[in-house]
Amino acid sequence: MQIIESVRWSDDGLGVRIIDQRLLPAQFVECDLRTLDAVIDAICTLAVRGAPAIGIAGAMGLVAVLAPHANESRERILARAREIGAAIRATRPTAVNLPWALDRMLRCAERTNGDGEAIVAALRDEATSILDEDRAMCRRIGEYGAPLLRAGARVLTHCNAGALATGGIGTALAPIYVAAVGGNSVEVFVDESRPLLQGSRLTAWELQRAGISITVLTDGMAASLMRERGIDLCIVGADRIAANGDVANKIGTYNLAITARYHGVPFVVAAPSSTLDSATASGAEIVIEQRSALEVTQVGAKRTAPDGVCIYNPAFDVTPAELVTAIITDQGIHRPPYRFS
Amino acid sequence: MQIIESVRWSDDGLGVRIIDQRLLPAQFVECDLRTLDAVIDAICTLAVRGAPAIGIAGAMGLVAVLAPHANESRERILARAREIGAAIRATRPTAVNLPWALDRMLRCAERTNGDGEAIVAALRDEATSILDEDRAMCRRIGEYGAPLLRAGARVLTHCNAGALATGGIGTALAPIYVAAVGGNSVEVFVDESRPLLQGSRLTAWELQRAGISITVLTDGMAASLMRERGIDLCIVGADRIAANGDVANKIGTYNLAITARYHGVPFVVAAPSSTLDSATASGAEIVIEQRSALEVTQVGAKRTAPDGVCIYNPAFDVTPAELVTAIITDQGIHRPPYRFS
Repeated sequence: MQIIESVRWSDDGLGVRIIDQRLLPAQFVECDLRTLDAVIDAICTLAVRGAPAIGIAGAMGLVAVLAPHANESRERILARAREIGAAIRATRPTAVNLPWALDRMLRCAERTNGDGEAIVAALRDEATSILDEDRAMCRRIGEYGAPLLRAGARVLTHCNAGALATGGIGTALAPIYVAAVGGNSVEVFVDESRPLLQGSRLTAWELQRAGISITVLTDGMAASLMRERGIDLCIVGADRIAANGDVANKIGTYNLAITARYHGVPFVVAAPSSTLDSATASGAEIVIEQRSALEVTQVGAKRTAPDGVCIYNPAFDVTPAELVTAIITDQGIHRPPYRFS
Repeated sequence: MQIIESVRWSDDGLGVRIIDQRLLPAQFVECDLRTLDAVIDAICTLAVRGAPAIGIAGAMGLVAVLAPHANESRERILARAREIGAAIRATRPTAVNLPWALDRMLRCAERTNGDGEAIVAALRDEATSILDEDRAMCRRIGEYGAPLLRAGARVLTHCNAGALATGGIGTALAPIYVAAVGGNSVEVFVDESRPLLQGSRLTAWELQRAGISITVLTDGMAASLMRERGIDLCIVGADRIAANGDVANKIGTYNLAITARYHGVPFVVAAPSSTLDSATASGAEIVIEQRSALEVTQVGAKRTAPDGVCIYNPAFDVTPAELVTAIITDQGIHRPPYRFS
């Protein structure tokens, strides 16, 4: 099975090879990021997206940009690392993985003894570790989750919490990949996930590429699908999980959870344990970003709503813990009542 | 208040003036249908749409096409009416209103005594009656439904069951128009209604034109909206209502009904009494049309899903009666348990 890798080292080891997600699903193009401008542009324009993938691309990008200067003095290379790190960090200020990865890289640089060469070598190892740890995290989620899928299970997912969003085989999609590799011919149904269509554009693309059976539907068709054709399990990712188990995820997740409950379909969340936010008591404390009206009033260049209408466009919603059947992390499967600390 | 008229006689009385719904919301263009080709093209390409509006346009179109031949013999004009009627009827074979309206027109022609002039005059009166009756039906739905809206009510609707779909002020939107004309500053929230976006393209446009406060959201945002901002009432149209109160309507309606139930929001259906189908015992007997995959895989010319993926694209879904708080028709307000006979 061919599971795509959204971020990795280029063949010569000097650049960051990413899949340009702006061009999906129409074109599959990989490009190697070798300059600061290229790294910043890729993150800002969502060529690379998904919080874990962005963190990895930022850490690896720091190495790619720094490497040509490895013959400089220790002080010069440390100063340069801080400058580059600050520039990359400023691309997407809200995601937590990017500053986390860059802080980790800068701490590594400072504690490494020796000259510029030594520091760049240590940073390359550290970035590779961040990538490898993310891959291992995805793999563990997949292994914990796969047994939840009966043979030939019909699974519905929302948005993209797959290989395109991580360094590995994804979070929500990891159990699907592990099950499929193990010979389970799961059938996956994908909400298109308006407004940005990450389901139809990205999840459908990566699962199709892996040879997994998929069917795309619009978000409003989930209830009809459950009633007319049957669904065994819903599985989605998470952007943040509060201490009580409330789950913030892509807008539309909460709708889907309610629909699943009405039809008696288990609703499962899969996310890295780093997503568990014990400092947030419940979903009520999670501030939801409102995004541009243009995402709803047009698709591509096509205008789909009249000028001047108000638009409701939250990026995320909060699914109350009472609707969540289980939460899978790299540490295991959590069941209600949730109490993360 | 300016409520649009989607179908009416042209200024000179010789053509059918329609709003070209293919161009909305970008352009507001009215055109006069005066030839058989123009009538057929307008119905086939959804320039005019909505079952009641199509029926009216078909009946009026028959008159417009027949009128230049009014000096022909009685036999010739009756034969011509049958030919034209058959051609118009073939445009959209599944809608019930169009054959109903054309049958009524042909019966009128046959029972009218006199020459071609007399028959065309009688047909003009009959088509005008069909339009007027539809307007009166919409008005009665509006008057029965308006009292359900408290002052400043926040109302959520799906798809377009408005003036654009009927000869009058719509079905689901009729109570909103009547309330607004009566000074109630209702706020309307509109699901965009993928895949064909009749909510954002059409409902938003006609309500904005009437000066009613509207906010557009994607279909997956309804649960978030109910929880975060509050909604007082959902109101939708219906394509067919079974004897037990199960409601077939635009895909996404069932999702919305489940979401409304979870939040304790009343879910109301408004439709002409002709939509009540006592011959259909329950929604399980209603055959649902599957539509082209292209409606889901692209928006305008923009491709939004990979080539070759399966698509689930039912045109309608069935909302079980247990989720329907009330059904408003031109005959009054029906409450559960529903038993239409």
